[in-house]
This record gives sequence, structure tokens and C-alpha cells, in this order.
Amino acid sequence: MPDTAQPAIAAKRRRHGGRAGNTRRSGPVIKQTPWRLPRNIDRPTEPLGPEQVARVHDAVMRVLEEIGIEFLHPEALEILRKAGCTVAGENVRMGRDIVMEVIAQAPASFTLTPRNPDRQITVGDGHILFGNVASPPNYMDLEIGHKVPGTRAQCRNLIKLAQYFNCIHMANGYPVEPVDLHASTRHLDVLFDKLTLTDKVVHAYSLGPERVEDVVEMVRIAGGHSHEEFAQTPRLYTNINSTSPLKHDWAMLDGWMRLARRRQALVVTPFTLAGAMAPVTMTGAVVQSLAEALAAVVLAQIISPGAPCVIGTFTSNVDMKTGAPAFGTPEYMRATQMTGQMARFYGLPMRASGVCTSNVPDGQAMWETEHSLWAAIQSGTNIVYHAAGWLEGGLIACPEKFIMDCEVLQQLQRYMEPEICDTSDAALALDVIAEVGPRGHFFGTDHTQARYETAFYQPFLSDWKNFEAWQSAGAVWTAERAHAQFKLIVNEFEAPPMDPAIREELAAFVERRKREGGAPTDF
Amino acid sequence: MPDTAQPAIAAKRRRHGGRAGNTRRSGPVIKQTPWRLPRNIDRPTEPLGPEQVARVHDAVMRVLEEIGIEFLHPEALEILRKAGCTVAGENVRMGRDIVMEVIAQAPASFTLTPRNPDRQITVGDGHILFGNVASPPNYMDLEIGHKVPGTRAQCRNLIKLAQYFNCIHMANGYPVEPVDLHASTRHLDVLFDKLTLTDKVVHAYSLGPERVEDVVEMVRIAGGHSHEEFAQTPRLYTNINSTSPLKHDWAMLDGWMRLARRRQALVVTPFTLAGAMAPVTMTGAVVQSLAEALAAVVLAQIISPGAPCVIGTFTSNVDMKTGAPAFGTPEYMRATQMTGQMARFYGLPMRASGVCTSNVPDGQAMWETEHSLWAAIQSGTNIVYHAAGWLEGGLIACPEKFIMDCEVLQQLQRYMEPEICDTSDAALALDVIAEVGPRGHFFGTDHTQARYETAFYQPFLSDWKNFEAWQSAGAVWTAERAHAQFKLIVNEFEAPPMDPAIREELAAFVERRKREGGAPTDF
Repeated sequence: MPDTAQPAIAAKRRRHGGRAGNTRRSGPVIKQTPWRLPRNIDRPTEPLGPEQVARVHDAVMRVLEEIGIEFLHPEALEILRKAGCTVAGENVRMGRDIVMEVIAQAPASFTLTPRNPDRQITVGDGHILFGNVASPPNYMDLEIGHKVPGTRAQCRNLIKLAQYFNCIHMANGYPVEPVDLHASTRHLDVLFDKLTLTDKVVHAYSLGPERVEDVVEMVRIAGGHSHEEFAQTPRLYTNINSTSPLKHDWAMLDGWMRLARRRQALVVTPFTLAGAMAPVTMTGAVVQSLAEALAAVVLAQIISPGAPCVIGTFTSNVDMKTGAPAFGTPEYMRATQMTGQMARFYGLPMRASGVCTSNVPDGQAMWETEHSLWAAIQSGTNIVYHAAGWLEGGLIACPEKFIMDCEVLQQLQRYMEPEICDTSDAALALDVIAEVGPRGHFFGTDHTQARYETAFYQPFLSDWKNFEAWQSAGAVWTAERAHAQFKLIVNEFEAPPMDPAIREELAAFVERRKREGGAPTDF
Repeated sequence: MPDTAQPAIAAKRRRHGGRAGNTRRSGPVIKQTPWRLPRNIDRPTEPLGPEQVARVHDAVMRVLEEIGIEFLHPEALEILRKAGCTVAGENVRMGRDIVMEVIAQAPASFTLTPRNPDRQITVGDGHILFGNVASPPNYMDLEIGHKVPGTRAQCRNLIKLAQYFNCIHMANGYPVEPVDLHASTRHLDVLFDKLTLTDKVVHAYSLGPERVEDVVEMVRIAGGHSHEEFAQTPRLYTNINSTSPLKHDWAMLDGWMRLARRRQALVVTPFTLAGAMAPVTMTGAVVQSLAEALAAVVLAQIISPGAPCVIGTFTSNVDMKTGAPAFGTPEYMRATQMTGQMARFYGLPMRASGVCTSNVPDGQAMWETEHSLWAAIQSGTNIVYHAAGWLEGGLIACPEKFIMDCEVLQQLQRYMEPEICDTSDAALALDVIAEVGPRGHFFGTDHTQARYETAFYQPFLSDWKNFEAWQSAGAVWTAERAHAQFKLIVNEFEAPPMDPAIREELAAFVERRKREGGAPTDF
């Protein structure tokens, strides 16, 4: 019965929609925690000992020295040849002396400044920052009830969520691919939506020169910057994926080099599935991923010494029964932690992800996503992609999952607040323990009354009612509560302010570029 | 509409029951990972610096020295007085010299040996072990669809799950309270069920002398031990909760002292809800919890130097909107980590829990449970109570949640396997990376073929199919898949072997004690 999911979820909606709508009673806006750049105060989890780190490093260097990486871009080959690398056809081998000298020029941390300077973020420096899901071709919500191709309307709603939640620091690439927009001009429409619906840092896909240049120009216009002002500091970022094993393709390298020259932020994330495009052993897959990533960082640093670069990890395992990728697995967690150790060894900021394999926003989705988020924390990751809204290994974007993830992200950000572990005399509270004694209750004390409103994290989605109260409120399961909040948020969403003149200039740019035909789609 | 949950879930069962039943196709038994005692190889997360540890320790000692703990048991008071404590009425104050000297006698690790010696466990020594949910008065499964008082039949089914899953190391107290059994003889029936349906370590509630003695005798009979053999090593454990703030009651102390004399394992777990029965500040609540726990350990060590003792933590926060306890919160995680630091400081094994606030086995249940399980790992916890089957802050036992938790526990146990981070040459796989090169695929290599069947964790409950395959298999959400597996497991359950003569002796003991009227219920 291939359509089971739809009536199933539709039935739930009928059953609970009205009641779930009651969350509106709690006020027009969800009570969320304020915007902040959380610092990861936990010591990283380090499965590798010092000798093992040295062995992994040596293996990475030997891949670069003895096996080499293919750069499918003539200009990149020429730049690397001039820098002393050994180029044979498209294969580039580089000595560890060059690699280590060049990557040492990359900054350990840097800022990204969007059109609203109050939304500036610092990548590195102990921060852990979160961005929304990016690039799923499909969408699902509990009202539609099954997987459908993405549309601009759905994309806009997800962009609104990315702007709405303070725990989301970056407006990553398209939260769902709006396949109802023609590929040649899609980037223009989505960037217009992103730059008008959000004031957070945005991203440029490295999918051909025209797209990259269009995005850079639109970010400049949206910020009201002159070309000179724009060039003064990083304002956007790109993320490239190597074509594992051991390859960087033309379009990705073009965007990479283009934005390196403009000194925008550069994230390179090999997608190394152990057993498929990388060795079946997790350490082997990590070695290959690091070699592919460092090769791109070397190119960027040769072109533009000191350009802000980030090493990303996307090393997981396949399901050996089906060959399909699995995410949030134990092996994924350790691969992420090992990559974190190596990123610190190389002195580069790191990117990981909030990912799962589950097809719906259920229990499995949340334990898999928790595993990937804890791996990010344990690895000292600085930016977490796909941290809200990801399902089916990245093939589905889901607003209910987005909101469930934001509840978790808020809790993780609260977890990072050192005040919880305050050991001042007032916090140790000996006098209060003495005052209350063996027969008392602490609620009535001044000590509690002065603190209780801010002492503990208050969730916006978790339901802490007892069973009976929860049942009489409609017995609404988490995903259905999230659906009601999704409706509430998008219906009441207010876009951040933008100078009408800037908005017009942005619209005119989009109009002109559409008349010119947008970007070629034959890459 | 107070009954919404029932038709809702009943409808789901009708819709998916048949398809979900298909998991049977994958064979008569679920493919689970083998029994093992996992070692926690991660360095603990330590939110307190050395000076903060010293401040917390000093505060704990000052509670014991200056404020005191009430022992509602004349014999305990006498023992503590003789040992040099200051006793005033039921209040006992003890100097840090006595405390530190006496608790130093407790072992850092010890074994517990059930009737099947192959199921012996080691508490401490870097192990992290898991036990089932214990003591909820209510039960829910997706067939019943709502919360009902527990029964013996439900209790037996949950005991079968505790025996069935290799990731469950201890058969904790009653997985659900069978309120259809009279309180005076309930312990006899449930222990008979536990000792015949499982061969894992069991637990004795400290709810009066008769119950404790009955359980001890039944464990001895089930093991086929003489009294002398039985006394040779710890074979069962109790867990007592202080009556926070600052009190230990008579029944708990009676069982504690009784089992200390028999040198069985002793776990003391204060239930200190910050803002209710403990200070609103988490460090204050941890201080009070440690003082209450150490006071009990001191008593045990005076009675029986070297008796195996474990410090438990159950410090969480209330929902300040309702005053209801909340579990798996950010504050809970830090309290557990801080308690872990102090347990190591005092050289005692530690107990934590797998807990959540959610009323149903949904997304919230899993993120809250994940938070509590990660807190257990991060705190170096040795035994994790309630690790499978807990809902509604411990008021509901749920078999679907039990099975979902076991999937997570298996993944965490896999996560602890050092092989994942093997850095041997074979694992770093340079030659394989060279062999495959930039245009190949790793699946066909000998390196992959030799490893792929064991390289990665294989789930029994997680569904890694893509959306379309998942949908055509019935679009079954996680809790519903767990329900089908629950039915499968209890229907095909085979009790571990027991000598018929021993079973008869056990039954005869229960019969006799019932004739004698069991235990008084007037405490």
C-alpha cells in the first residue's frame, strides 16, 4: 500500500490539528532563547592517541605525495605546478613541506558579516554555530504527508524558519531545491528570497562562474556596500564537495578559486562513504577525506594566502545490505571525532553536520540526529550544516523536523552555558540547605524565588505535561506539535527590515540577469 | 477529547500492524549484537575545574559536618554514634576525617554474579552497563494506546525483553509495578518471574525486612547455592533513595544495613529535584545529593568495611511552570557530569539513568533519552538504570520505548568499540586508496569484501530504506515497528534453562511465604 503514509498522517492532522493549534494560546510568538554565538566549553572527545594522530597525518601526507589528487581545472593545475607541485595530466602530487607551509597561512578563526552586522558570526575561536538543511531535492510535511519535489513556496517557508529561530546562525544553501524554478535562473530567485527574508550570513553554490558572481553581487547589493566596502571582510561562504575518490571537478574549483581571490569563506567537504567512494575502514575513509580537503585548502592558500578556509567532514558508512548511505551511526560519530582531532592538528576550523537516515520526523530521526550533533560537539566542530530540517539522508527537507531540531539545538546551546556549573557560595547554597532543613521544601525560599524564572531551560516544543494533562490537550505527538508551530511561525513571520531602495536594486538585478538568460545549465 | 490517543494508535495498528508484522520475514529472531560488558573508552566531560571540585567537596563535607543528615533508624543512629559521629535526635553530623577514612574502604569496582555465571557483571573498572526501567506504576503500549495500571502479565513481558536483549546487563527492579498483585506478596511473584524468566543479576527493593530476606533467599535458591556459597560473593543489589532533603528513612536503611552485612551491592540514589527538594542551583542540588549519598556509604562501610557501594545521581530540574520534574534537560546533563567528577574524586562507582519526560515513544522521548544516556557516558557512569522502557518521568513503562532504547544502547555499545579507530596500515588502507584511484569504487576491492559484513553496525530497528522502499513496506514509523518487534519477541521468547528441582524449590518457597502472609504492608 504505497500511499499509506499520506492517509496516515492526514488522519493524524485531522485528529490533532485543532488541538495542536492550541499552542497559539501560549502567545503569538514562540518563546525562544535569544541570538548568541555559543562557545563549546567541553573538552573534545579524542579516540586517537598522539601516535595515532601522527600515523593518520603521515597517511594523509602520503596520499598527497604518492597518490595525488585530480584537479579537473587547467588554471588550478597551472597554479599548483608553479607552486612546486608535481602535475601529471590532471593528477597533482604535493610534498608535505609545501602542504604544511601553505595551510599554516590559513586563519584559525574568522568572521562572516551579513547585511545585518548584528548577525555577524565568528567561525572558529571555540564557537559552535548551526545552519539549516541545504539542498534536498524533495520536501515533506505532515499536511502533504509524503515526499514531493521541492517548490519555491516551500523553500521560502523553510527560509523563514531559518530566519525565525535564533539558534540558527547561518542561512545555508537552498533549504529545499525549488525544482519549479528553471535551473538557469533558480539561484537568482532563491537568493532574492534569502536576502529579503533573512539578514543572516548566506552561502553561494559553486555551480559555475555566473551563479557565483550573481550571488556575490546580490550579497553586495543587499548589504548596501560599494565594491570597496564589500571587499573589506568575508561576507558569504561557499561549500565545495570533492568528487571522491581523489577528485575536484571544474565547477567546484572555479567557485573555490573565484571566492578565494575575493577572500570570501571557503568550506571543503569531501563526501567519503566508507565502502563506496572511500575505504571500508573508517580511518582509511578519514585519511582520504582529509587528503581531498587539504588539497583544496592548499590551492586556496597559494592563490590567496590567509584566505578563510574550513575543513568539512561527511564521512559515514553505507548500509552494507543495500549500499545506501547511513547517517548518525556509531562509525559516523567516531569518523567525525577523528576528523576533529586532525582539524585541530592542522589548525583549521571544522564543519560537520546534523544528519539522519530516517524518512520521517520520528524517534529514529531524533536519535540519529542526536548522534550527529553530539559528534559535532565532541569533535570541536565550529559550524554544523544541515542542523535543522534534514531527513532521508538529505533527500527530504521537512519543516516539522526543522522545528524539532531547533528545540534540540536550543537545549544544546543552553548546555554550553557555564552558569549551570556555577560554584560560587550563592550557587553551592549551603545556607539555603541549612535553612530548609530535613522537613522543608525549597520552592518557597528567597534563593529559589530570586532565580526560578531563569534557573532552567524552558522548551518551546517539548511537552512536559503529565500524561493526563497531555492527553486532555489532544494527545499530540511531537511531530504534530511541530507542525502546528510551523504553521504559526510562517503565518506570522515578519521579514527583517530592508531599505526599499536596496530591495528595488536587488529586484532590478534579478530582472536584468533573467533577461540575460541567467546561468548556463550545461555544466 | 481525553481518549484521542487510543483510537489514534489503534488506527495506526490496524493500518500498519500487518505490514509491520513483516519484520518476521527477516527471521524468527532479531539479529542483535552479542552479550558483552562494554568499556567506556571516552575521557569524561568535566565541567568543573580542579578548584571547583575542591569547592564542591568542601560544601559536601560542610553539609555532613555542620548541617547533618537524618537517619530514621535507631540502630543506624547507634552505629554512627559509636563510630564518632555527633548524633542529636535523628540528626547525624560526621566530620570529614571520618567520612573520607571510611569511604576509602569501599572498592572502586566489584562483580555481581547471577545464577548464570556467564552473566556476571563488573561494576566499575571503566565499564558502562545498562539495566531496564524499574518501578513505573503504569504501562502503555501501542495496542492499548493509553496509560493503564501495571499488571503481572505486562511485567512478565517486560522481564522477557530485559532477558532477551544482550545490551541489557541487569534485570532491575519491577519493570512495571504489577498492581494486580497484592502488595504483601507481590515481591514473591515478581521475583519468581524474574528468576525464572531471566538469568541476569537481579535487584531487591529495600521495602521492609521480610521482602529483602525473601529476595535474598530466592536468589540463593535460584542459584542452587548453599548459604555458604551464596555468601562468598555479591549476587544481588539494592538501590535506596534518600528522602530528600537530608533524610534516610527506616525501611531503606533497614535493607541497606541488612545487605551491607551480607556484603551484597548497595546503590544509594538521592532524588534531588533542583527547586523542589534541593536548591534551585544545580551545583547546590549536586552538593546535597552527594552529602545524602555519602552519609549512607559511611554507614555501610562502618557496618561492613569494603562492602560494594555505588553513588547514584538523580538530580534534575523541575518545570518551573508546573513544578513537575523534567528529565534529559541540559541542567540534568551537567548535574550528572559534575556528580561523575565527584564520584571519581571519592573513588566510588557511579549510577545514572536513561530518562525522559515525554509521555509517548516519539521524537521528544528519544532526544531526552539521548541526553540522559550521553550524560551517563560523559560522566563515566558505571551502571545506567532505566536505560530501556521509561516514559513520563518514570510513571509509565512502555515496551515500544524499551525496544527503541535497546536500538540506541546497541549503537552506543558499538560506539565504544576501539576497532572503529584502528590505525593499523591495513585500516589506513593507503594501498587500497592507490589501487582504486580517482575513477574507481571501493566496494569491489578485496579490502572491502573481506570486511564489509562486520565493518559497520547493523541496526535491528532503525529503518535505512529510502523513502519509496520504506513507503511500499507500509510507511511504518519507528514506534510502530518497535511494537511489531515487541510482539515477535514475547511470542517467541524462550526462558533460560533452570534445573526443574530448583524451580520447584523456588515455587515451594513462594507458596510457603504466601501461606505465611508475605510481608506486612503497613510501613
